Amino acid sequence: MDYRIEKDTIGEIKVAQDKYWGAQTERSKNNFKIGPEASMPHEIIEAFAYLKKAAAFTNADLNVLSTEKRDYISQVCDEILAGKLNEHFPLVIWQTGSGTQSNMNVNEVIANRAQVLAGLQIGEGEPVLKANDDVNKSQSSNDTYPTAMHIAAYKAIVEYTIPGVTQLRNTLDKKAKDLKDVVKIGRTHLMDATPLTLGQEISGYVAQLDYGLKALNHTLPHLSELALGGTAVGTGLNTPKGYDVKVAEYIAKFTNLPFVTAPNKFEALAAHDAIVETHGALKQLAVSLYKIANDIRLLASGPRSGIGELIIPANEPGSSIMPGKVNPTQCEALTMVAAQVIGNDTTISFAGTQGHFELNVFKPVMAANFLQSARLLGEACISFDEHCAQGIEANDKRIKELLDNSLMLVTALNTKIGYYKSAEIAQTAHANGTTLKEEAVRLGYVTPEDFDKWVDPKLMIGNLE
Amino acid sequence: MDYRIEKDTIGEIKVAQDKYWGAQTERSKNNFKIGPEASMPHEIIEAFAYLKKAAAFTNADLNVLSTEKRDYISQVCDEILAGKLNEHFPLVIWQTGSGTQSNMNVNEVIANRAQVLAGLQIGEGEPVLKANDDVNKSQSSNDTYPTAMHIAAYKAIVEYTIPGVTQLRNTLDKKAKDLKDVVKIGRTHLMDATPLTLGQEISGYVAQLDYGLKALNHTLPHLSELALGGTAVGTGLNTPKGYDVKVAEYIAKFTNLPFVTAPNKFEALAAHDAIVETHGALKQLAVSLYKIANDIRLLASGPRSGIGELIIPANEPGSSIMPGKVNPTQCEALTMVAAQVIGNDTTISFAGTQGHFELNVFKPVMAANFLQSARLLGEACISFDEHCAQGIEANDKRIKELLDNSLMLVTALNTKIGYYKSAEIAQTAHANGTTLKEEAVRLGYVTPEDFDKWVDPKLMIGNLE
Amino acid sequence: MDYRIEKDTIGEIKVAQDKYWGAQTERSKNNFKIGPEASMPHEIIEAFAYLKKAAAFTNADLNVLSTEKRDYISQVCDEILAGKLNEHFPLVIWQTGSGTQSNMNVNEVIANRAQVLAGLQIGEGEPVLKANDDVNKSQSSNDTYPTAMHIAAYKAIVEYTIPGVTQLRNTLDKKAKDLKDVVKIGRTHLMDATPLTLGQEISGYVAQLDYGLKALNHTLPHLSELALGGTAVGTGLNTPKGYDVKVAEYIAKFTNLPFVTAPNKFEALAAHDAIVETHGALKQLAVSLYKIANDIRLLASGPRSGIGELIIPANEPGSSIMPGKVNPTQCEALTMVAAQVIGNDTTISFAGTQGHFELNVFKPVMAANFLQSARLLGEACISFDEHCAQGIEANDKRIKELLDNSLMLVTALNTKIGYYKSAEIAQTAHANGTTLKEEAVRLGYVTPEDFDKWVDPKLMIGNLE
Amino acid sequence: MDYRIEKDTIGEIKVAQDKYWGAQTERSKNNFKIGPEASMPHEIIEAFAYLKKAAAFTNADLNVLSTEKRDYISQVCDEILAGKLNEHFPLVIWQTGSGTQSNMNVNEVIANRAQVLAGLQIGEGEPVLKANDDVNKSQSSNDTYPTAMHIAAYKAIVEYTIPGVTQLRNTLDKKAKDLKDVVKIGRTHLMDATPLTLGQEISGYVAQLDYGLKALNHTLPHLSELALGGTAVGTGLNTPKGYDVKVAEYIAKFTNLPFVTAPNKFEALAAHDAIVETHGALKQLAVSLYKIANDIRLLASGPRSGIGELIIPANEPGSSIMPGKVNPTQCEALTMVAAQVIGNDTTISFAGTQGHFELNVFKPVMAANFLQSARLLGEACISFDEHCAQGIEANDKRIKELLDNSLMLVTALNTKIGYYKSAEIAQTAHANGTTLKEEAVRLGYVTPEDFDKWVDPKLMIGNLE
Repeated sequence: MDYRIEKDTIGEIKVAQDKYWGAQTERSKNNFKIGPEASMPHEIIEAFAYLKKAAAFTNADLNVLSTEKRDYISQVCDEILAGKLNEHFPLVIWQTGSGTQSNMNVNEVIANRAQVLAGLQIGEGEPVLKANDDVNKSQSSNDTYPTAMHIAAYKAIVEYTIPGVTQLRNTLDKKAKDLKDVVKIGRTHLMDATPLTLGQEISGYVAQLDYGLKALNHTLPHLSELALGGTAVGTGLNTPKGYDVKVAEYIAKFTNLPFVTAPNKFEALAAHDAIVETHGALKQLAVSLYKIANDIRLLASGPRSGIGELIIPANEPGSSIMPGKVNPTQCEALTMVAAQVIGNDTTISFAGTQGHFELNVFKPVMAANFLQSARLLGEACISFDEHCAQGIEANDKRIKELLDNSLMLVTALNTKIGYYKSAEIAQTAHANGTTLKEEAVRLGYVTPEDFDKWVDPKLMIGNLE
Repeated sequence: MDYRIEKDTIGEIKVAQDKYWGAQTERSKNNFKIGPEASMPHEIIEAFAYLKKAAAFTNADLNVLSTEKRDYISQVCDEILAGKLNEHFPLVIWQTGSGTQSNMNVNEVIANRAQVLAGLQIGEGEPVLKANDDVNKSQSSNDTYPTAMHIAAYKAIVEYTIPGVTQLRNTLDKKAKDLKDVVKIGRTHLMDATPLTLGQEISGYVAQLDYGLKALNHTLPHLSELALGGTAVGTGLNTPKGYDVKVAEYIAKFTNLPFVTAPNKFEALAAHDAIVETHGALKQLAVSLYKIANDIRLLASGPRSGIGELIIPANEPGSSIMPGKVNPTQCEALTMVAAQVIGNDTTISFAGTQGHFELNVFKPVMAANFLQSARLLGEACISFDEHCAQGIEANDKRIKELLDNSLMLVTALNTKIGYYKSAEIAQTAHANGTTLKEEAVRLGYVTPEDFDKWVDPKLMIGNLE
Repeated sequence: MDYRIEKDTIGEIKVAQDKYWGAQTERSKNNFKIGPEASMPHEIIEAFAYLKKAAAFTNADLNVLSTEKRDYISQVCDEILAGKLNEHFPLVIWQTGSGTQSNMNVNEVIANRAQVLAGLQIGEGEPVLKANDDVNKSQSSNDTYPTAMHIAAYKAIVEYTIPGVTQLRNTLDKKAKDLKDVVKIGRTHLMDATPLTLGQEISGYVAQLDYGLKALNHTLPHLSELALGGTAVGTGLNTPKGYDVKVAEYIAKFTNLPFVTAPNKFEALAAHDAIVETHGALKQLAVSLYKIANDIRLLASGPRSGIGELIIPANEPGSSIMPGKVNPTQCEALTMVAAQVIGNDTTISFAGTQGHFELNVFKPVMAANFLQSARLLGEACISFDEHCAQGIEANDKRIKELLDNSLMLVTALNTKIGYYKSAEIAQTAHANGTTLKEEAVRLGYVTPEDFDKWVDPKLMIGNLE
Repeated sequence: MDYRIEKDTIGEIKVAQDKYWGAQTERSKNNFKIGPEASMPHEIIEAFAYLKKAAAFTNADLNVLSTEKRDYISQVCDEILAGKLNEHFPLVIWQTGSGTQSNMNVNEVIANRAQVLAGLQIGEGEPVLKANDDVNKSQSSNDTYPTAMHIAAYKAIVEYTIPGVTQLRNTLDKKAKDLKDVVKIGRTHLMDATPLTLGQEISGYVAQLDYGLKALNHTLPHLSELALGGTAVGTGLNTPKGYDVKVAEYIAKFTNLPFVTAPNKFEALAAHDAIVETHGALKQLAVSLYKIANDIRLLASGPRSGIGELIIPANEPGSSIMPGKVNPTQCEALTMVAAQVIGNDTTISFAGTQGHFELNVFKPVMAANFLQSARLLGEACISFDEHCAQGIEANDKRIKELLDNSLMLVTALNTKIGYYKSAEIAQTAHANGTTLKEEAVRLGYVTPEDFDKWVDPKLMIGNLE
């Protein structure tokens, strides 16, 4: 392979001729052979492109960078955003905890690519852009990496999570309305209970997701605050006056998202509570989705030896050995995603506690876990929606059979003959394998006419508005 | 011991003569010998007292309960709230997951105590109140227990957590202002970095707690919604018209807290996402408090072989073997509390996923973990505030010594002579054990006059508003 | 209240006249008002009694303590172990993270109680025992508290956890054998699958607990190693020659458990990986028990609208509103305990990472969580065993009905007619609501005679030894 | 793109002409667009290659498969193991929880590739191999996927984790010996304590890793047990006599690892406690490594405003803004890995609880998290070892300065003049900024000669063997 020599403050190092990165990226690549190559999430690289471009515009506006340099930076950032330079970002999550090396990776690629865009060889003559002095001007890894985290996180929430959850929520809401008249047996403690409608049951799921989305939205203002402008320790050293506000405006403009500068830069570097906070809401959604998906697979269990009240789409052969088997695979994917998100929350919370003084150095692990959760939740909801939720149908025959057979309709008698006599009727019917009506009449507690009038499932589901 | 015979739908059972509980409590007591007796949080019992009283008033208003019965119920509830009947609630957390047995414990105690208040023996004549038919009227364990959870949780947040965190926040805010002119070395990656003021450093802590309190407040509307009125499965079976709204109003009135009826009772019984949501905010506070307390103990480390920039109060002898040792014990208590809360969050999230159909049966474990977190956080903040934060002082001599000695002031030269020459100065001074100024001048990069003008810590801390 | 004056290196302080504790306990009591009073687990206090007595005997044997002082210490330790001095240990978990204050609480109580045993007033004349110089001789909080943790933890494992889990395991093993001929439908993905026996199904639970117990036993050697003798930082400063080995022998003798001195005292003070390790095994048991209890409640679900293959004991009325309802309450208690243990594991792991240099100062929180888990698991297994597992019965009628009706028996045809034709039979029967045999014959793939010969559930359960 | 038509029991579907997979893989690819493509760990695919080959040999030995078919299967498996077919495994983690689709992906690729090896077109004539009837013979996803999990997990432990941790352990052990005579100040509660040697301090780290490795090794027998032979529900339906034992022998032979057949197949399908158990040991190692890496960065903090007792290698420029800064980046990578592993443990524990009846359907998420942890831990240890641990040096000058200055040497006087007088000396020296000796003499408690004799750090580090 062909190499060129790059250098940094540590000394010289060989870099593959066909790669735009420089000395610091190369060192990181060699020093951190941990996990698959290039595992630093690409969303972070893209976020860096937005912020480097915004910084260049701001620096130029504030007269600390030439417009020529600004335009070179901007042009390369646009190439990064267009996905043209993906192979030039080889670094891993498990590097320095400030993400410095990924910041430098971006700085180096921009500087070297600009050189080429200018028609020069890398290393030839006075550089068009210097990685530290120009591309990183008015910046530090300590404020750029957390800014990139917030940009990438916010984008993932609004591009993946919210649309995915909302799509599923809307399908469930439609189902709740479509199935509002299907009266079925309720179950508490997994045991037969008083009836409700299938629509009511599903409306509970919709409510869960509505609360989850609301909780997620509550966290977004904190996430919209950007550290950029704090530089090394939060004081804004080496930034021109007005830089922090303006650079956030440019980022907002380029991303079309409501970013603002963080009012306290010390917090924004030393703690990542915004990531903890928003991921807490993702975890809440994971908890809700788990409940929903688990209920649906239980309700669809069978087809003959389970509950069987719901029919879900048969998307694949379910077994490599049992012919004709169909499994609730979308429920399984979604509950596995929920388990992942709950574990990611442990990682993020732990990492969030471990800042020291002016910097938290668990940034890449927090970013990676957050972005995985945000995307998985969104995509799993879409998958679940399209391949399961939309196709859910009530198994009316089975639902009616179970309802008619139930002993818990006896609860309707509580207000007529009291809890104790009602219990006696249910227990006797259970012991004898008979119906409630038979025993109610036989025990002399209710006339057949009253029984039919009082014990009507349709009357047991509706005295709330 | 003297016994009387109590009975329920299972049959007869002996109960100690001097206890007000009945058959179902006794069964639970015998069937669940798990962990210390009476571990069901007392806050839950109190919350039940509020809701039983509110239910009685509502039932009476809606003409399904006599005012005489209402007043008996109300009178016993007031006794419970006054702490007079504590010994009559012996049950544990680790019982049925719906908390049915604690609901019945309250029902039974109210019924039997009312009997005594009426001048009768327990079991004598027609009972003044029936546990199920009167005290539990228009209720189910399935809606009362989650209502009690929300009442107890909300109260704990506003009585313990918010005041505790706020008190600490205010002290730190005062410290940040008092110490705003103390310039000190910054530290990133635990390594010396550019300077900031002690006030700025502490302002980051204040910002963390402000975000945490805001996040906590965002969760309260969900927590203020009460399940009561949903009864067994959320349909409101056996409740009179208008009951749910009115009973929430009574609870709001009795507790002086803004409770409302939950718009979707199915969600309120089958999921406890409100508990997950609010505890997520408690966990975020735990993460923040961990960072703060850990920083403070590191900054106070020494007295001679650590950082030593802060002086914290010496409250106790620090060692049973090392004379004269003083330890950051309040930091230790607070960080241990944080570790507990983070683990409690795992329990609560897991439990929150495990609802089935119309009921989540992990209610007591969720309640117990939540209440522990809310109280511990609040009390630990008060303790930390009174015995540590209020007494924090800057060790000015040490701070100045470290600042003057630092190599990272070189960063101020970046914008004058570029990153590379600045790095060379710092590295040379580090290698030679000399000062930046000596090497800057010796290398011929800066004149002594420029050095003094450019490298001034006071100028390095302030270009953000 | 009557007070006396106690003093320590900080100064004088008032202590209630009727309490044996001294100045340092009083300071801790005042400085750490966090959570319920006296929350430091009593098992830790007992463990201290064992170790203080062992230290006294060792010190006397090695001629650094008089036999008279040894006997006073021993006598008070025996009183502590007999539970006579419980009211004198008021401290909480949330104190200094080394547990110094609880160590001093024990030292002070022993010294002051000895004074009284000697017929003197506390504070009168030359003290019979000095808390630091005599009771704490050859010790530091830093080695006594972790020693107490290991003693208490080991005892809890052998007194609660192992017997409890073993009792349940034995009952399940008996059930597996009793029910070995009950052929039933299997279920995978919650969907009907090929048959197995109920005994086989339960044998899987037994295997889980056997693995869990084996894993737990593997951790005990590490837990049996005691820090005592390391004193302040692990070097054994201020201990006489041979002290560490001998004191562990005395502890082993007094507790009748196989304790030995830790070969590396630095590890034993600065890390609590033994606690992490053993609690990891407790968590594994929690995972297993969750699966078992959850299966049992699903198998017992119904009685008419669930699976209903198992009948479990009806121990309590299941509902305060639904008469005649019986719930799987023991399953609920056990799964709630599992959720608690899994969260405790998060706390313990986190706390385990946070040692600094020569000491981990999360000792009390680790101890408290560990002891809770060990006891809850053991007691919940006993409760589950006695009130549920022992009473489990097969619902033969229901099991047969589901088995006969199943479509997955078709799998037996794979090796006769291939996977694809078998699938066609099952799918057709499912679509038509018919039996496998009907469709197999109708499709012309199998003769009725062959069908009966080949598709026999009893032949589908047994070709493993 | 060119397509061919594949079919399964659901119907026909188009598959890209240049891919070997079949209908079920294609369905999964379309139905589960969750997260990055091909995220199912490649280690799982390799493990499947071992087991499919072993199954083919066993089936042939037991006369249920022709040797010709065996050899085709074997040949393709060898190609998979050689990495030649990587592009044919496009499926994701987030699919069916049994991993059925990845099992079928392997079956389909083997069948179609064999067709090509036989010189035929895919779909041409009677297939050389049928995916279900030949490649999957005597197997089910339900026993193959957990078998693949164990194979992949075991290999990752012995190929990554154990060698990595051992290499670091050996370096630290060498350092402990090299630095055994460097006496330094100890620190407890982050505060100055009595001295020890740097070698002793590091020996604690070695002990931690030794315990961790021992704990890990204890778990391997459980992990070595393979589910294969249990087929659909654990009964071994459709396997020939002796199959399970023999197939495990073949797997052991092909992998050169001590695999055996699981004695209880029901446990092996329905629970993954072996994964929970071994990952528990990985988590314990993560806890230990966190402590070690965190200590090292604290000891190396500075260079001028921290502790500075250790010098660690300067591998990269530490800051994009602060010239000359060197950071403990390897410590950061390792502690981030630890945070990840601890979160992965939460996911794995949760997933481990969620088996239902005869199958746990969280297999892929458990496998993926396990494999990530095992590899990251191993590789991070190697990275930390090579780029940090091996280069650790004592900063002798700094160590001596801090030691000489320390107040905690006073502890040596406890046994001479008692705890109280010793404390007075230390507190006075602290208050006056003087030395212990000055105050000891001034207070008249010790003569200068005795002080020098008694207070000798070298005598304070060594009375344990």
